[in-house]
Amino acid sequence: MFSRALSVRAPRRGLHEITEAVAEAVGKSRVETGVCNLFIRHTSASLIIQENYDPSARRDLEAFLDRLVPEGAPWITHTLEGPDDMPSHIKSVLTQVSLTIPVQGGKLALGTWQGIYLWEHRDSPTPREIVVSVF
Amino acid sequence: MFSRALSVRAPRRGLHEITEAVAEAVGKSRVETGVCNLFIRHTSASLIIQENYDPSARRDLEAFLDRLVPEGAPWITHTLEGPDDMPSHIKSVLTQVSLTIPVQGGKLALGTWQGIYLWEHRDSPTPREIVVSVF
Amino acid sequence: MFSRALSVRAPRRGLHEITEAVAEAVGKSRVETGVCNLFIRHTSASLIIQENYDPSARRDLEAFLDRLVPEGAPWITHTLEGPDDMPSHIKSVLTQVSLTIPVQGGKLALGTWQGIYLWEHRDSPTPREIVVSVF
Repeated sequence: MFSRALSVRAPRRGLHEITEAVAEAVGKSRVETGVCNLFIRHTSASLIIQENYDPSARRDLEAFLDRLVPEGAPWITHTLEGPDDMPSHIKSVLTQVSLTIPVQGGKLALGTWQGIYLWEHRDSPTPREIVVSVF
Repeated sequence: MFSRALSVRAPRRGLHEITEAVAEAVGKSRVETGVCNLFIRHTSASLIIQENYDPSARRDLEAFLDRLVPEGAPWITHTLEGPDDMPSHIKSVLTQVSLTIPVQGGKLALGTWQGIYLWEHRDSPTPREIVVSVF
Repeated sequence: MFSRALSVRAPRRGLHEITEAVAEAVGKSRVETGVCNLFIRHTSASLIIQENYDPSARRDLEAFLDRLVPEGAPWITHTLEGPDDMPSHIKSVLTQVSLTIPVQGGKLALGTWQGIYLWEHRDSPTPREIVVSVF
């Protein structure tokens, strides 16, 4: 079991590709055939796999989730940490806290157009810890 | 491969923390560095990881999902098992049936504010079986 | 680590059960106690586990997601590949790219009413590759 912690600070709220950093950890693991599990140790940022070709797909994804989970809704009571906090928790629940990706030939077996993304939901990003386990 | 079944009956519809029961199974597994997979064997209850500090965050999460997936919508045709049944299936699809969490130093490597929750979506909860696999 | 690629072409947009094909791969793996990970190598189709008894539950699930993520919304900018493309990406993010299911007694430890589904989100389905890893 190979385990490594990645610390990633997104430059701003939104989707930030981390495929390269994960691929590097997989290479270091020396696992040829197996799986790679990613786990984010936070509740206001999350992980997804999505198209890594056209940036407009990412912008539309962000727009969709901002519309689905608006800030300042009248039924929100958890407001102490700012208007972007409770929507961040909801957004992280609707996406992923953990992802498991096959490893084949020593590499992530992602599809041609798939990239791995950290989805930062807060307006003032802090460093996020992602545990990479390869086995 | 350590495997154990947890049977959990939530006292009512909503989020119910199961972190302690999962941590106990991980302790019994004697795995030092690995992962813990949780799988719920039902389609009207689900699993999430979320903030375990302020109860208002959980109440707002429940309020959000009840608004997103209302009971009694005119397009719902699967109604034989009551008005809370079809919304339960939809809610379970939008959250998680399985979670994989790293194990480090013999313990769940959760973030400081992360807890593991059973999300019971039915009004009259029955016991739910969750398979814990540690390896 | 047993690894096998399934190629599945859904007959039409919507939910298509793949439980039998996955169970067959698990049987071939000869794993008695372990887990089975599924990973779909696409960003416009996804995986879920859901009720496999009453077809009306699946129809309502499809109806819900089509209402939640409508085609032709004015804020969608990623439109080059047709009106069903961007909604497909959003739908795949709200459901699952990977699932991990326990294996017990050489079989998938699904609940009584659980089935595994490929959710094809495009109108003109192409073959989809799903990697099955058993360990």
